[in-house]
Amino acid sequence: MFDFRITAKDPHSSARSGRFETPHGILETPLFAPVGTRATVKALTPRDLYELGASLVLANTYHLYLRPGTDLIQDAGGLHGFMGWSKPILTDSGGFQVFSLALMRKIDADGVTFRSQIDGSLHRFTPESAIAAQEALGADIIMCLDECAEPLDRDYNEAALARTHAWAARCKAAQRRADQALFGIVQGGIFPDLRKASASMLRGLDFPGYAIGGLSVGETKDQMYATLDVTVPELPAFRPRYLMGVGAPEDILEGVARGVDLFDCVLPTRVARNGGLLTGRGRMNLRNAQYAADPLPIEPGCACYACQHFSRAYLRHLFKAGEILGLHLATIHNLHFELQLMREIRMHISAGTFTAFKAQFLAEYRLPDQESRHAQRARYAQRLRERDNR
Amino acid sequence: MFDFRITAKDPHSSARSGRFETPHGILETPLFAPVGTRATVKALTPRDLYELGASLVLANTYHLYLRPGTDLIQDAGGLHGFMGWSKPILTDSGGFQVFSLALMRKIDADGVTFRSQIDGSLHRFTPESAIAAQEALGADIIMCLDECAEPLDRDYNEAALARTHAWAARCKAAQRRADQALFGIVQGGIFPDLRKASASMLRGLDFPGYAIGGLSVGETKDQMYATLDVTVPELPAFRPRYLMGVGAPEDILEGVARGVDLFDCVLPTRVARNGGLLTGRGRMNLRNAQYAADPLPIEPGCACYACQHFSRAYLRHLFKAGEILGLHLATIHNLHFELQLMREIRMHISAGTFTAFKAQFLAEYRLPDQESRHAQRARYAQRLRERDNR
Repeated sequence: MFDFRITAKDPHSSARSGRFETPHGILETPLFAPVGTRATVKALTPRDLYELGASLVLANTYHLYLRPGTDLIQDAGGLHGFMGWSKPILTDSGGFQVFSLALMRKIDADGVTFRSQIDGSLHRFTPESAIAAQEALGADIIMCLDECAEPLDRDYNEAALARTHAWAARCKAAQRRADQALFGIVQGGIFPDLRKASASMLRGLDFPGYAIGGLSVGETKDQMYATLDVTVPELPAFRPRYLMGVGAPEDILEGVARGVDLFDCVLPTRVARNGGLLTGRGRMNLRNAQYAADPLPIEPGCACYACQHFSRAYLRHLFKAGEILGLHLATIHNLHFELQLMREIRMHISAGTFTAFKAQFLAEYRLPDQESRHAQRARYAQRLRERDNR
Repeated sequence: MFDFRITAKDPHSSARSGRFETPHGILETPLFAPVGTRATVKALTPRDLYELGASLVLANTYHLYLRPGTDLIQDAGGLHGFMGWSKPILTDSGGFQVFSLALMRKIDADGVTFRSQIDGSLHRFTPESAIAAQEALGADIIMCLDECAEPLDRDYNEAALARTHAWAARCKAAQRRADQALFGIVQGGIFPDLRKASASMLRGLDFPGYAIGGLSVGETKDQMYATLDVTVPELPAFRPRYLMGVGAPEDILEGVARGVDLFDCVLPTRVARNGGLLTGRGRMNLRNAQYAADPLPIEPGCACYACQHFSRAYLRHLFKAGEILGLHLATIHNLHFELQLMREIRMHISAGTFTAFKAQFLAEYRLPDQESRHAQRARYAQRLRERDNR
């Protein structure tokens, strides 16, 4: 169980392809996991996900713990039975959402107390309860409870890292089920010494896989890539490496080049619901008037159901009219784009041509304006800080 | 083209089954047409509709005329190409929505002037422009512009009927395309003499099909059935008969028993999105707490995708969490229920067992409270009257 075999290495980068064995099937890596926050990838059926070739789906312990409750899901046969998904599932620990969504949170050495954003009710997560909740949910890959600090705040990262490390050891000790791979999470913000220390500490606990957390939450892309440069080499080569919450195509390529195996992100599904479509030339905003009578599919040549059957004009109409079908078709397209990118990445790693593929993709893919992106992230981080100071 | 062949007659009622030929395929009747108001049956793909066995889809001229515009749809290859649906389509004339949705309306002998509920802009429908709009949309079945009066108001019905009849003749004269079946619409509220006069007048225009409008808009069920009793016999037996806007299972059975061939209604899709599920025993409200941990499918034995893969507990979770997948799965189930009912009706008509089937179905199907239903309809009619008096 949880055997990870590297099947090919790129000669010009740290990219690698592999096969990770789980109770619900073998995962071919590098992979991208669509996010099914509340036990559903928004606007899609499991059948849609099978057709898209999704292999791993992520669900959020925090959300499911609050509603409908982890016990209810356990009684329903676990997440697989409850949501009708028979391939592998990954659950996060809930920590990230406690720090980003809960109405109030109070951390102590033993865990974190918080109020539900649904009804204000009081709850508490400890390393032990986070594992128990994830054992009830029954995912194939589960995560240690960690504390995701603001990435540029040195003092906060030092304090948070001490808790994250202590909690990792307690999570490992608390685990009862042998059919779930518990991953440790490296934290440490953008600080190379903290990241190295974190990787080293977790390596000592011998997890079947390692996640890199606390990135794509306020730092620049260069800071994220530099942090990967110093972190990934500190992780054991023979274990899968999971970059949490990262899913922009350019970031996936840079992550793969640095040796990352697993990615997840709400990006493709969330921007889809806002009318943002991923194409080989960058993002396209379907709401733009220029597409009002455009007979072309979102991306000519794309094999997805949306592109095979509908025009930009029709999709724009659906978005302008507020029709659910628009959300569905845009989600289908964006996930197809990401999963197809992963298939091409794996193929090029096997063929030894990944680095050339990456260069060509990035030459054609126009990035969203980085300044506005960074400003947006900074505003988000600022909001979190303000809330924490209340 | 538009040949209608009756394939079986029920020995104990006026029910009949038939085959209606259209440019996009043969329609087996009695049939129920899901409503795709804005060129999409809400929350479903055309593929879902094919799988459900839908044969005819209705779209609304009023909505599509306002957004994205009938010219744009014509340039996109008509409604079939625009919405990716290759089977038959029916468009209404837009009249009903002008009378029920537009911000303002002013009727004269020549047509109706109204303001869009989207942006307040001023528009005008005449019999000729309603036909031109429907010819641009390119549906297989199109409708005359009519005036749907409050069903219990004798004076209003008399005045409206005069316009509806004059407009029917002008619609027929305005038609240019030979590949669309233009249906006349019988009006006259709940008044037998008006209904008979209306049927007689329209019969004289020799339409390839006849609709019965102005029902299910404020009268009681008994009044609706009594009106069908006097209207249907006045229509030519060798033409399809279409009861507009009716789709509750009990009304479909009563309509079929009285010789109706076509039905359409937003009921199954609209109540689905409110968490109302159709079952053989009546409507089930998925949001009820009693289903929180219920492992059964919506309806045990149901062959739809939702019932084959998901529990009531999961569906309730989706509705409580506001997830789009809940709307999709509930819509799938309700349309399956209606389309399966139509398949059974056709089968029982062929077998000569329709009347027994109807009795058994109605004995098991608990109707929604009729008093509250009637009060709701009366409030709706009152709102329309108040608006008209402004």
